[in-house]
Amino acid sequence: MALWSGRFEQGVSEGAQRFGASLPVDRAMYAQDIAGSIAHARMLGRQGILDAADVERIEKGLLNIKRQMDEGTFVWDLNDEDIHMAVESQLIRDVGAAGARLHTGRSRNDQVATDTRLYAKELLLSLVDGNDALRKVILTSARTNFGVIMPGYTHLQHAQPVLFSHHLLAYFWMLTRDHVRLVAAWRSADANPLGSAALAGTTYPLDRAYTTELLGFSHPIPNSMDAVSDRDYLLDLLYACSVSMMHLSRLCEEIITWSTTEFGFITLSDAYSTGSSIMPQKKNPDFAELTRGKTGRVYGDLMGLLTTLKSLPLAYDKDLQECKEGAIDAAGTLQDAMACVGGMVATWQVNADAMRAQASRGFTAATDVADYLARRGLPFRDAHEVVGELVLYCERRRKGLEDLTLKELRSFSPLFDDDVLEGLDPEGIARARTTYGGTGHEAVKTQLREAARQLGRDRRQASSLRGRMPNVTGD
Amino acid sequence: MALWSGRFEQGVSEGAQRFGASLPVDRAMYAQDIAGSIAHARMLGRQGILDAADVERIEKGLLNIKRQMDEGTFVWDLNDEDIHMAVESQLIRDVGAAGARLHTGRSRNDQVATDTRLYAKELLLSLVDGNDALRKVILTSARTNFGVIMPGYTHLQHAQPVLFSHHLLAYFWMLTRDHVRLVAAWRSADANPLGSAALAGTTYPLDRAYTTELLGFSHPIPNSMDAVSDRDYLLDLLYACSVSMMHLSRLCEEIITWSTTEFGFITLSDAYSTGSSIMPQKKNPDFAELTRGKTGRVYGDLMGLLTTLKSLPLAYDKDLQECKEGAIDAAGTLQDAMACVGGMVATWQVNADAMRAQASRGFTAATDVADYLARRGLPFRDAHEVVGELVLYCERRRKGLEDLTLKELRSFSPLFDDDVLEGLDPEGIARARTTYGGTGHEAVKTQLREAARQLGRDRRQASSLRGRMPNVTGD
Amino acid sequence: MALWSGRFEQGVSEGAQRFGASLPVDRAMYAQDIAGSIAHARMLGRQGILDAADVERIEKGLLNIKRQMDEGTFVWDLNDEDIHMAVESQLIRDVGAAGARLHTGRSRNDQVATDTRLYAKELLLSLVDGNDALRKVILTSARTNFGVIMPGYTHLQHAQPVLFSHHLLAYFWMLTRDHVRLVAAWRSADANPLGSAALAGTTYPLDRAYTTELLGFSHPIPNSMDAVSDRDYLLDLLYACSVSMMHLSRLCEEIITWSTTEFGFITLSDAYSTGSSIMPQKKNPDFAELTRGKTGRVYGDLMGLLTTLKSLPLAYDKDLQECKEGAIDAAGTLQDAMACVGGMVATWQVNADAMRAQASRGFTAATDVADYLARRGLPFRDAHEVVGELVLYCERRRKGLEDLTLKELRSFSPLFDDDVLEGLDPEGIARARTTYGGTGHEAVKTQLREAARQLGRDRRQASSLRGRMPNVTGD
Amino acid sequence: MALWSGRFEQGVSEGAQRFGASLPVDRAMYAQDIAGSIAHARMLGRQGILDAADVERIEKGLLNIKRQMDEGTFVWDLNDEDIHMAVESQLIRDVGAAGARLHTGRSRNDQVATDTRLYAKELLLSLVDGNDALRKVILTSARTNFGVIMPGYTHLQHAQPVLFSHHLLAYFWMLTRDHVRLVAAWRSADANPLGSAALAGTTYPLDRAYTTELLGFSHPIPNSMDAVSDRDYLLDLLYACSVSMMHLSRLCEEIITWSTTEFGFITLSDAYSTGSSIMPQKKNPDFAELTRGKTGRVYGDLMGLLTTLKSLPLAYDKDLQECKEGAIDAAGTLQDAMACVGGMVATWQVNADAMRAQASRGFTAATDVADYLARRGLPFRDAHEVVGELVLYCERRRKGLEDLTLKELRSFSPLFDDDVLEGLDPEGIARARTTYGGTGHEAVKTQLREAARQLGRDRRQASSLRGRMPNVTGD
Repeated sequence: MALWSGRFEQGVSEGAQRFGASLPVDRAMYAQDIAGSIAHARMLGRQGILDAADVERIEKGLLNIKRQMDEGTFVWDLNDEDIHMAVESQLIRDVGAAGARLHTGRSRNDQVATDTRLYAKELLLSLVDGNDALRKVILTSARTNFGVIMPGYTHLQHAQPVLFSHHLLAYFWMLTRDHVRLVAAWRSADANPLGSAALAGTTYPLDRAYTTELLGFSHPIPNSMDAVSDRDYLLDLLYACSVSMMHLSRLCEEIITWSTTEFGFITLSDAYSTGSSIMPQKKNPDFAELTRGKTGRVYGDLMGLLTTLKSLPLAYDKDLQECKEGAIDAAGTLQDAMACVGGMVATWQVNADAMRAQASRGFTAATDVADYLARRGLPFRDAHEVVGELVLYCERRRKGLEDLTLKELRSFSPLFDDDVLEGLDPEGIARARTTYGGTGHEAVKTQLREAARQLGRDRRQASSLRGRMPNVTGD
Repeated sequence: MALWSGRFEQGVSEGAQRFGASLPVDRAMYAQDIAGSIAHARMLGRQGILDAADVERIEKGLLNIKRQMDEGTFVWDLNDEDIHMAVESQLIRDVGAAGARLHTGRSRNDQVATDTRLYAKELLLSLVDGNDALRKVILTSARTNFGVIMPGYTHLQHAQPVLFSHHLLAYFWMLTRDHVRLVAAWRSADANPLGSAALAGTTYPLDRAYTTELLGFSHPIPNSMDAVSDRDYLLDLLYACSVSMMHLSRLCEEIITWSTTEFGFITLSDAYSTGSSIMPQKKNPDFAELTRGKTGRVYGDLMGLLTTLKSLPLAYDKDLQECKEGAIDAAGTLQDAMACVGGMVATWQVNADAMRAQASRGFTAATDVADYLARRGLPFRDAHEVVGELVLYCERRRKGLEDLTLKELRSFSPLFDDDVLEGLDPEGIARARTTYGGTGHEAVKTQLREAARQLGRDRRQASSLRGRMPNVTGD
Repeated sequence: MALWSGRFEQGVSEGAQRFGASLPVDRAMYAQDIAGSIAHARMLGRQGILDAADVERIEKGLLNIKRQMDEGTFVWDLNDEDIHMAVESQLIRDVGAAGARLHTGRSRNDQVATDTRLYAKELLLSLVDGNDALRKVILTSARTNFGVIMPGYTHLQHAQPVLFSHHLLAYFWMLTRDHVRLVAAWRSADANPLGSAALAGTTYPLDRAYTTELLGFSHPIPNSMDAVSDRDYLLDLLYACSVSMMHLSRLCEEIITWSTTEFGFITLSDAYSTGSSIMPQKKNPDFAELTRGKTGRVYGDLMGLLTTLKSLPLAYDKDLQECKEGAIDAAGTLQDAMACVGGMVATWQVNADAMRAQASRGFTAATDVADYLARRGLPFRDAHEVVGELVLYCERRRKGLEDLTLKELRSFSPLFDDDVLEGLDPEGIARARTTYGGTGHEAVKTQLREAARQLGRDRRQASSLRGRMPNVTGD
Repeated sequence: MALWSGRFEQGVSEGAQRFGASLPVDRAMYAQDIAGSIAHARMLGRQGILDAADVERIEKGLLNIKRQMDEGTFVWDLNDEDIHMAVESQLIRDVGAAGARLHTGRSRNDQVATDTRLYAKELLLSLVDGNDALRKVILTSARTNFGVIMPGYTHLQHAQPVLFSHHLLAYFWMLTRDHVRLVAAWRSADANPLGSAALAGTTYPLDRAYTTELLGFSHPIPNSMDAVSDRDYLLDLLYACSVSMMHLSRLCEEIITWSTTEFGFITLSDAYSTGSSIMPQKKNPDFAELTRGKTGRVYGDLMGLLTTLKSLPLAYDKDLQECKEGAIDAAGTLQDAMACVGGMVATWQVNADAMRAQASRGFTAATDVADYLARRGLPFRDAHEVVGELVLYCERRRKGLEDLTLKELRSFSPLFDDDVLEGLDPEGIARARTTYGGTGHEAVKTQLREAARQLGRDRRQASSLRGRMPNVTGD
């Protein structure tokens, strides 16, 4: 029978029990549940609500259960509704009346909120670590391949030559924003609901500041009804994961495109490729595709929780049970995806020649030719028009700009001189983009330094957050 | 090593392998995989591509594997990428060269499409059964409680009295539309991709009509590239589940509202209620809340697959691996939710007195009073205005319409006579709504008969679909 | 003042009124609103609820209003809450008491449901036409370019050569499924709610069969509460649009890829390209990108309505006002997208040489070489392994399979003979895939014929649906 | 002709042009476009790229155009693709060659990114103001109604009595988190892309720090490719709006429930209610329903952009054009919804008696009775069981706890004494919850003070952000 069965004449139907079971999901949070219970028990003891001997029995009992769960020897009873009941039932079996006193001044409502926040903080710190590790890999590849030239694209059409490092660093900065969002989600989770009881607080003289300190939270939540019903921090987690998966899906789309026979810009390592059951020649970028595909799953997790939370009245509703699984799924997916993408980037072979060969195709010097005319006084808008006509002229004749005679050029504008294409090889075009943030070699070196500094700052931040986790179970 | 390893110098990295593993999900489809392989083998034999002895060895071997899987004695090797490889590897271990011939003229691309379609058909038929069972429960409750009067609501405000049966039957018809959508998804899945090979068909003289017949499909898919890349039927399944969960969320919202102390319209059975860990008096409609909450999860599954499929180039991409888990999750969730809702409806206690007491509150006779004036010649729009003023007059004096004197009434309109409220008790108001589809007692009886006929037709349809499933494994 | 103001002491606040205004959206449905009102009035007359003279006045007045709206001369009053009030207020101003009698036995709840269903049916028929037109364009391009060979892809890696027509026809069949979904949505909308009044039916002896006939619906809805609250048909519309946009996004992704300098498979017409404000050479596939991008918008419309409908209690709730805008947006987006994609396909230039050149790269003959070994008795699984090793051998030496000597081949398998590559040019490989649905030339010819027959059937179906629309306004 | 037409032989097809038109959406950003252009022109002048006279002509011309747009006298040409082209074309018509020089060293890609960021910052500051205003209204209502007691709910079942102020303040804190998210989105938008040109930076010696200062951005974006493709800040905006709408949907759900005849806890003002076209008595909480319903729309906007951004390759793709409309729609919807909810809260009538009457129903003292036993030494888990049985006993006899004799009580536990229900009236129960964050009167007073302080801090922050907006147009 459940621990709340006094007023019931009949147990829950089997099908309903299975439908409502949260143990398969929330057992992942056992360490957090036990940490929360130890903090609660110590506080009850300090406030004189439990006597010291009971507190000691409870703490020992809980640590014993935790050890069994750590070691995988704990015998789970699937009739327990959730991790809270699983731990508490076992504790009562193990230590008797002291165990039955643990739940004094507490409800599953504040307990589950506490556990979930602690667990979310843990997940988020791991994601921060994964994010930083991936950024490091990208930064390393950008450094290693410094000088490699590729076509820059807009609309997937050749636009202007860029440094491959510059292209890669764009992802560094996307991921830097993901770091910010992950930390924001962590801060969102970092508030203590314990002591809010069912919804209204309790009549026991709890010391919420003390449990806040023991559990490493920054402050107690100021409203008990909000404390038991708020799941914003899980939305924040899901949202941060969604945006980060979106960023990874963009990089993976490029990895897939670059790996085609037609582009041939990179070759993935065998360690990140798979074959076909029928076509012996195939070497497929499966893991880039999977990452791209799993973006949908994480979006779905976000949309699911947003939908679940819509229109819920205060304070706690059972709908909230649905909040955990998606968050765990999304965090795990992003973690694995970051590791996979990191693996691909760390082991890919960059085919600099293929990139370089494409960088001059598609009239990628056209903007610089227009700039040339503009510098000679033609308004840029008119210069653009002239060069557009030049390109059309070349296309019809299947020529490049470099194949034109000065006479041909001058038939489009008398401002042309024979120095027009000077320095307009791909390297020259890239190098000339010297403004801050541009693809010029010096500008990209500056950017590499800034990226390294940013990563250093972010690592230090992660360390400091790591220091603010519960420390009551002696781990 | 994987079965496609010839051209690879190095195995897949461990992390990537874990990320890409589909066996934990697709092992659910083992029976379908084996049925598809038997059909393929028989066809290869009939076309003279394999000799009869090999076909026999393969079929025996596959049935043996199936038996082990049915019984739970099969030893799964988690290094197998997916169910297809798990079965084929074991078959080769068991029957040698014959097993290694099974994959002739086939690719995992058409194989997985075949398995998934067979599995989706199975899931959908179960959902159809669940849907019909739930409708039966609703119909029974509507019959049993015939005559019970409740306030009909718009904007959750009292509008006009209705029969509780009428209210319930609205859900019957919603679910009837879900039946239609589930069957449409079934038809969408009911086409045979086998024989499409990797994407282009094959050079072997396969007989696709024969495998179509063996597997119970209605026709072979006419384009091999479409065959290996189409997952529309899973979207159709997810969409049908989403709409049905939406319908259930509406009923569950009402169950929750009706169960409040304030409404008190129904009392849920203990078998579909749970208690609180702190508040001894609580009896919560957890399963209605869970069903409502899980609606988000199913929406998320739909949104996830829509996102995954966006912008995928032809033909097969690994992103498609992500298509199965969400579909299985959504189907399972809906199945359980229908069973839970059915359980609640079958066992609830309807508090007719509480419903009846509310049915006359909130001036629910006002429309009929306006109709009274309109029948006496006042344009309806003007009659509406007069009665609106009457209601305001009553509200200020905290009176009901029945408390007014004829003199008071006539001060609003001389058309009033003392017969105005005749028959305007809740039953009378409901009974007078005699038009087809209305809440009048006779109209609802007609509706009950139509609902029963509809359900009968739908059951016969379900039976006929059940007859069109693969029958090669002797189950 | 609103037409329901009798019981109110104060008007709606200005901000709230603006927030609640539906006229900017629902004025699109004026023709449907007027058709519904004429049908209602005629029925009231036939049933003796209104006298003939009033019915005539109402019908004339409504047709007069419709004429002004058709011509754009109607003066809209933005204080009217919605199209229903706009029409009814004007009617009362124009024809007096008769106008004030029109709303007898009707509520805005059944009125808006009727209008929206009629409008949805109209939108869906237009989408069916657009779908069929696009399929015709694709079929024509598949015919015109018959014989063009391209690399078939899986994982965007070269797999096996296919006919370009075969690739295109895959989209034909995707869109054929969209036709089915659009028609299903049409059928879902095709039921008459009129006569359900606010939620409970009415006390007037309405003839719902007669309005059903006048408005071209297939049957009256059997439950009045369901009738006023059901918006499933808009979900069905949104879902059909979402899947179809997903299909278009796939084709557009390919158009974008094929238009790159690296692939160069097609050249879009200038009529479906745009340039850059800074780069004079750019010619961008903007409309393929826009179509791909707008897929998100339509998904959002679907997710929006699913969310809105979740947990709504019966019968009508104001939340339902939100249902129309997204549906109109999605239908319009899909309509424009189909036209744009049709325009691109109809005017693109197919670069057969570029496709052909790629078709033999990437060892696309490997499967056929394995089949060769399998035909000589090697189990396919072993043949696959041998050819995989061959490919690795070639790659390391930067050779093609055709560059190998017989001796080299035999060092991998003694089964090789010098006929191994016979017929293994891309055309030969494609042609050999003769099974139904395969890419062989004859198989594709069969498919072209089937596609044409399918389109013919679908056009006839569309015509028959077109015959079942309201015909009371003499259009 | 478009401003990029040089290399084109043919204009864009009419249908495609309409499909691609962004002017109807992006004209909302004209002030930002002009501010960006003035900053760009001034910088070009300062760097000697344009001469001073041209800069002056440009600035005057732009301010003139802005004045016309402010006043509504500007004549829009719908052939202009977007706001950038509309302004630039007019400028060239007005000031000639100087105007044609404005686009030197700039692309629409960095221009649109700049405009959108400036516009997003503006929208977000308005939303911050709206959020703070709504919180003020809620805080005021919590203060005004201090002392009102209502039943606190979990699972919508009576749990424990709470102060109505406490319940309201839960929303204050939810909205406080929304303030944080809105400010985070503002910071996300607060970075300058101008000077990134098409994707690679430019060959002109631009001073990005100077435009950063003129436009009030905090720093220039360090990577030009990221600068033109990043739309994370719009996701952040959409996400912040989604969560805030979710919070409002919860409050509106409660407003709807509280307004029912059955609850009767509040009466909405006529200014925030509407009537029915058929039922004269109806007074509906339309605006609460609309707010709840529009939650779906905003979720849809978020899901739409997430979908659109998935898998986009670098750098700019036309898909990004789709990013603005949803963001503007979501911000406008949230703004109006906050105003409507504020209006409802500011004008509602709180029916304290009805709340109080319900607060003691449903055995809301049960937890305190269990606490009573626990204080007398019974382990809480056992006390819970005893009181559960008591409740069941009472329910069967339709009694309250207060109706039991001491003898009856003692038959459940000998620990009961006749002081058991002392102070267990609703006020007493609430008052006794003295812990920080609880519903006790003193605790809620503390909370009211904290909320006021929080709001003060947030207003000061909003002011400081307001100071960091562009100031080049003299507004």
